[in-house]
Formats: sequence, C-alpha cells, structure tokens
Amino acid sequence: MKTQLEMDWSQCFAQRTALMTSSALRELMKVASRPEIISFAGGLPATELFPIKRIKSALTAVLDRVGGQALQYSATEGLADLRDWLARHFSTRRLRVKSENVLITTGAQQAMDLIGRILLEEGDRVIVENPTYLALLSAWRPAGVEFLPVTCDADGMRVEECEPLLKRKPKVIYCVPNFQNPQGTTLSLARRERLVALARRHSTAIVEDNPYGELRYSGRALPSLLELDARNQGTSGFDSRVIYTGTFSKVLMPGLRVGWVMASRAVIEKLTQAKQAADLHTGTLSQHLALELVSRGFLEEFLPVLRANYGKRRDAMMAALGKYFPKNATWTQPEGGMFLWVTLSKHIDAGKLLPAALEQRVAYVPGEAFHLKGEGKNTLRLNFTNARPERIEAGIKTLGRLLESKV
Amino acid sequence: MKTQLEMDWSQCFAQRTALMTSSALRELMKVASRPEIISFAGGLPATELFPIKRIKSALTAVLDRVGGQALQYSATEGLADLRDWLARHFSTRRLRVKSENVLITTGAQQAMDLIGRILLEEGDRVIVENPTYLALLSAWRPAGVEFLPVTCDADGMRVEECEPLLKRKPKVIYCVPNFQNPQGTTLSLARRERLVALARRHSTAIVEDNPYGELRYSGRALPSLLELDARNQGTSGFDSRVIYTGTFSKVLMPGLRVGWVMASRAVIEKLTQAKQAADLHTGTLSQHLALELVSRGFLEEFLPVLRANYGKRRDAMMAALGKYFPKNATWTQPEGGMFLWVTLSKHIDAGKLLPAALEQRVAYVPGEAFHLKGEGKNTLRLNFTNARPERIEAGIKTLGRLLESKV
Repeated sequence: MKTQLEMDWSQCFAQRTALMTSSALRELMKVASRPEIISFAGGLPATELFPIKRIKSALTAVLDRVGGQALQYSATEGLADLRDWLARHFSTRRLRVKSENVLITTGAQQAMDLIGRILLEEGDRVIVENPTYLALLSAWRPAGVEFLPVTCDADGMRVEECEPLLKRKPKVIYCVPNFQNPQGTTLSLARRERLVALARRHSTAIVEDNPYGELRYSGRALPSLLELDARNQGTSGFDSRVIYTGTFSKVLMPGLRVGWVMASRAVIEKLTQAKQAADLHTGTLSQHLALELVSRGFLEEFLPVLRANYGKRRDAMMAALGKYFPKNATWTQPEGGMFLWVTLSKHIDAGKLLPAALEQRVAYVPGEAFHLKGEGKNTLRLNFTNARPERIEAGIKTLGRLLESKV
Repeated sequence: MKTQLEMDWSQCFAQRTALMTSSALRELMKVASRPEIISFAGGLPATELFPIKRIKSALTAVLDRVGGQALQYSATEGLADLRDWLARHFSTRRLRVKSENVLITTGAQQAMDLIGRILLEEGDRVIVENPTYLALLSAWRPAGVEFLPVTCDADGMRVEECEPLLKRKPKVIYCVPNFQNPQGTTLSLARRERLVALARRHSTAIVEDNPYGELRYSGRALPSLLELDARNQGTSGFDSRVIYTGTFSKVLMPGLRVGWVMASRAVIEKLTQAKQAADLHTGTLSQHLALELVSRGFLEEFLPVLRANYGKRRDAMMAALGKYFPKNATWTQPEGGMFLWVTLSKHIDAGKLLPAALEQRVAYVPGEAFHLKGEGKNTLRLNFTNARPERIEAGIKTLGRLLESKV
C-alpha cells in the first residue's frame, strides 16, 4: 500500500458540512468592523457605552469575594446564584420560574445550537418567520431539517399562515416576538395568543428567542409566549411547550458570552447533557461578572442609558431615511431592538449594491441572506445601535445618494 | 382537535439524545466538589495556586489598553493576536505554524465537539485508546459512530493493535499521547512514529489531544504526532493529517474556557463554520486575559510553580499508594499530567465501593466509566493535582483501609 503524504480533507468532511453557511457574511462583518466604516451591518451594541470603570470594580469585587473558584471549572448548568437570579428576575404573577428551569449557555447562539441537537432530526420540519435570524438557519440547517416559511407584516409573523403548515407536523415553531431580527417588528398580543393556542392544538414546541426584549424605546411591553403558555407546578417551577432563550449580550456585554434557556425541567435536563458534551460549561469568570453586575442593580442603571441612547439612534435613522432615501423605499418602524428593515424598489439588488456602499465606507447586510430561498433581493437590514446619531445620518445620506444614482 | 395542555417532551427528543451520557458522573462531580471531601475524582487544577493578584492586574491592564472592545463581539476564529501567539509558541524547527492554522475554541471540549461535527457521520469508525477520555465519548457518541478499542500498556496505546483495525477504514484515530486521561501513561517515541506512518498509509486522520503536555514532572518531552507528520508549506503554514487540540485550562485557569485547534487550513476553515453556528466566538474578555498573561511571560513563571507542586503531589500519591494499598493492586507511573490509574484485585468492583468511599469523604472515578463496554470494573482513576500532599496521604490511607476490609 502506498503511503499518502498529502491528506485529501475534502474527502473526509461529513456530508452535512455542505449545509454549513459560507463565510461570505463573516468576511463582510470583518470589513464592517474597520473603524473607517460606518457599519449598519452587525448587531453590535455601542462599545463606547460599556462602563469600563464599573466593570473593573466588579471584576475586583468578584476576585476578592470568590477567589480562585471564579477561575475554576464550574457546573454545566451554570452558577447556582446566577440561575437563581434569572429565575427570580423572570418570575411574574403568571409565571413561576425555578432555577431548575434555567440553563446558562455560552451566549444565546449556543442555546439555539443545543436546542437543535436535542430536538431536530433529518427531515424534521421547522416553522420560521421569513426573513428570519440568519444564525438560527446556520445552527439548524446542518441537521437536515426543512424550514417552512411564514411571511411577516408590521405586526410580525402572520400567524394565520401557520395553520395549514401545522398539518405537516412541524416539530418546532421558531419565533423572535420582540423587535425581530432582521425586521425589527413586534408580534401583536392577539397573534401571540393565537400562536400559543395553535401550538397547543397541534402539540408543537415553540422556541421563543428574545435577545432584545429589554430594549424597548416606545410602546408597551407584551407578555412572552412562555408567560402565555406556561403552567406553574407548585414548587417545581413551570411546565410549557415554549423553550425561551435570552442573553446578556444586548443588555450587558456580548464578549462575556452568557446566555440562557428557560424551559420545562425535562428540556433543561436534556439540554444540560448536550451542553456538557459541547463545552463542559460556560466561562466561570464571565458568569461571576454578569452576576456581580446584575445582582448589584446595574441593569436598573444601565438599561435606561441604553434605551435613551439607542432610542435616539433609531430616531436618527428613521429621520435620515425619510430625508435621504428614495420615495418608493419603505421601512419598518421598530419599537425597540437593534434593527430596521428597508424594502427598496423591486429592480434594485441590495447585494449587488454592497461593494459600492463599502467603497463609500458604509456597510449593511443584504436582506436576501435572511430569506430561505434567495427572496428579498431588494431588501436590507440596518442596525442602528452601533453608530452615533451623526454617523448614522452621514451613512444613510451616503446610501441614499447611492440609491438615487440607481433609480 | 383537542387542545393539549401538557407537552410530552419524551416524544419530542431526537433519537440521538438516547446516546447522550447520563448525568451520574456529573452528580458525582458535584458531591466531590464539597469542601469536606478529599477529591481524587475531577481533573481540577489546584485552585489555591491561581495568582489572584496577578489576574486582577492583568484584567485591569486589558481594560485600560483595549477598552470596551474587550467586551464586544469578536471574530469566530479567535483574537488575531492570540492566534499569532499560539502559532509562534508552537512553531519548532520542524513545524511552521501560522495563525491560519489556529482556531480558538471554548475550551478543548468544544474542539472535540466541532471536530466530531465536521468529520463524523453515522456508522463511521473511530479508533480510541481503551480506556479513553470520557468526554470524548460523550461528544462523539451521539453522532452514531462505532468506537474501535485499542488496549494500552505502560507506553500508552498498543499501536500494533491499530493495524488490523485500520482495514475497517476508520475515519479518525483519537489519541492522548502525553499523560493520558485516564491512565496517565505516555506514548513512546517509537509508537508515535509508527502511529503516524500507519495513519499515512491508510489515509486516516489523527486527533491528537494534548491538554497536559506542558505538565511534565520527570522524563523528557517527546515530539507531538503533529510535529512528526506535518509538512511545512512555505508561508501558508503546515499541512497535516493530524488535528491537534490544546487548552489553557491546565496551565492557566479552566474557568476562562479558552482552548484551541491546530490543523491544516482546510480543517480550520470548516471548523470555523461549525463554531460560528455553535457559539459565534469564544469569550472576548477571557481571550484577552489569557493573551495578556501569556504574552507577558506568565507561563515562564507559573509553569515551574505548577510542575513543582503537582510533581510533589504525584510523588505523595505514589508513596501513599505503596504504603496503604493492597499488595495485589498496581498503578501507572505518570511522568506528568493529573491522573494515575489503579488496577485492583479482580474481584473488587470500584463502582460498588464508591458509596462507602464517599461516606468516608474520599472521591474517585470508577474506571469502568472510561471503558467502551463496561470493562475495567476493578480499576479507578485518581487525580493528584487538586489536593495538597497531606490530604492526598490521608485520602489514600482511607481508601487503602477500605480496600483491605474487602480483601
């Protein structure tokens, strides 16, 4: 037998790797992160608002109080005190959350990945908003699932479209009810109630992804799908068909990679097994830092700052769009979150326009990327939280001129 | 259609979740972490050696220098400067590592998980040492692979046993060449060379897992399988059939969750796609802290401290075993790492003995757990790095008495 000096890796990769998302968007994000670029591309919080001094003192406090254990291996489920804090934080009159209902994850992205691992098998069907969160598709597509798209309007997912799709016995309905990524829209209360009722009738699980819920700048907060569905079970927490995911990435700092899942205990137990194999546990120091901040009232101080700043940026973007974008362009009116969604004249391809925009130092994500089958070529997602208002105005002006030149 | 109030989750879980490891060992680790227990169970570094003051000043330095970017989203591949540092650190006369050969992972456990995702499909065969690293089995078992066991002796894996198994076209050979978990043994140079030659002849990939290599207390360091196999490719780094994994967990602090993979660029590119879907990126602050420490010469100070302390603890355990364990018990002689491996008289079941040991406040892991098919009931794994020498002596004495009572 001949000795093979070269390894042909292309022959070795598992078939499902062909379903893994290409790196085109990762490369776009790298370009967009250059300081000279006005980036509406990522989903980044405003770096300059991170309170460095406060974080330093919180880290010192953690190391003084916890010592070396803050840097040691820790439980797969997450720090007990952090799970307790989350359980208390999310408990409401109608929803009793116990720490057994909570799993800490390495960001909400890991929550999506783990949920996919415990629920989805090849051929399973999943109802999603179309357009939907891109990284959800990346996480679940390699499992070989079929995505069933539901269109959206100003009130979010058109829930009535789920009804015929439910006859195809989808395993999961995935939904971002608050300030959806990518569209920025919010699911109305009537639709929330209907969605939960439909899921019950068809015994379908719901994955409720809520990274942005706390970032509301106008309008009134609505109950979560979990609150609408869950049934309390005495001292052992709640039971529900909703698996709810959240994260500190948007309300504290994403670099910590601390997210969570809230769900029935049976689900948390299975997710914990999957997490143990995936990365043993989430960073111990990161969890302690998050706990130190939130348990000392940091969110009560910081959230108003975020809301005030991001609300102004949203308003700046809406105003600039009205001023500089073509008359036949439309956009969503987000009440919170990080994104709005622009629909251009049918003949404009936002993907083809991107290189010219980057040349003029403005970045965005073409809307096609969020669609299941290459629809939405004339759409784009704009983030309004990362740049300051004057940069937002300048960037939208540049894009507007570019668009006018194409009309 | 009747509305289902209760969700029957057991009907929803994917079939592969049945292959996920039970939580029995996770529960043992929780018991073992109680302060009153002398634990030989985990693979924990010595918490009291973590230099808290130095870590505090490193965190302050990072936040002063990097500011909010240290807490922001960062690249899936890992921090560029950390990848560069690792590339330089691992480059030798025969091996030229470029940062493109490096992916930062959320601990080495995630490296195992991602490697499994890009390489393994249902029915694939994987050669492993038997006994082998438990969490590797947890990570790869749900893919539905068949593990082909190779027995071990004082020089590690009996590589000659691989030869007939290679006819079954395994996709991967998994090996821990230095201070193997669970046995503590080291693969001899002759076997390393033979293993690499065999893998080449059969076009098989090798996963070289090396978390403990820097923790050598006696004997001489041996070249890695990667060094023996890799071919440098000018300025673009190396190409190899070996995928090498490492971690800061054993030489800095595990709570950071910073590990890495070194491999051919084609493999790194595929792993990066998988990682993006798994958790977007590894904690930014954790990576900066690790980089700050290692780039300022911390390892040159800290590794001698670890080696001196852990070497003494190993010696204390070996001495205590000689003094207190039954004459018909044998154990490995590790030159480094964290574990040694005890074989008891055939009629003793280490698993059945564990409750009595825990009652007397000593914990270990029954060896059966590391075996593929429930062999090794009369074996156990002992960690010697987490407890101080006097506690090690006391714990081994307790276990020895317990064993004598069973003879």
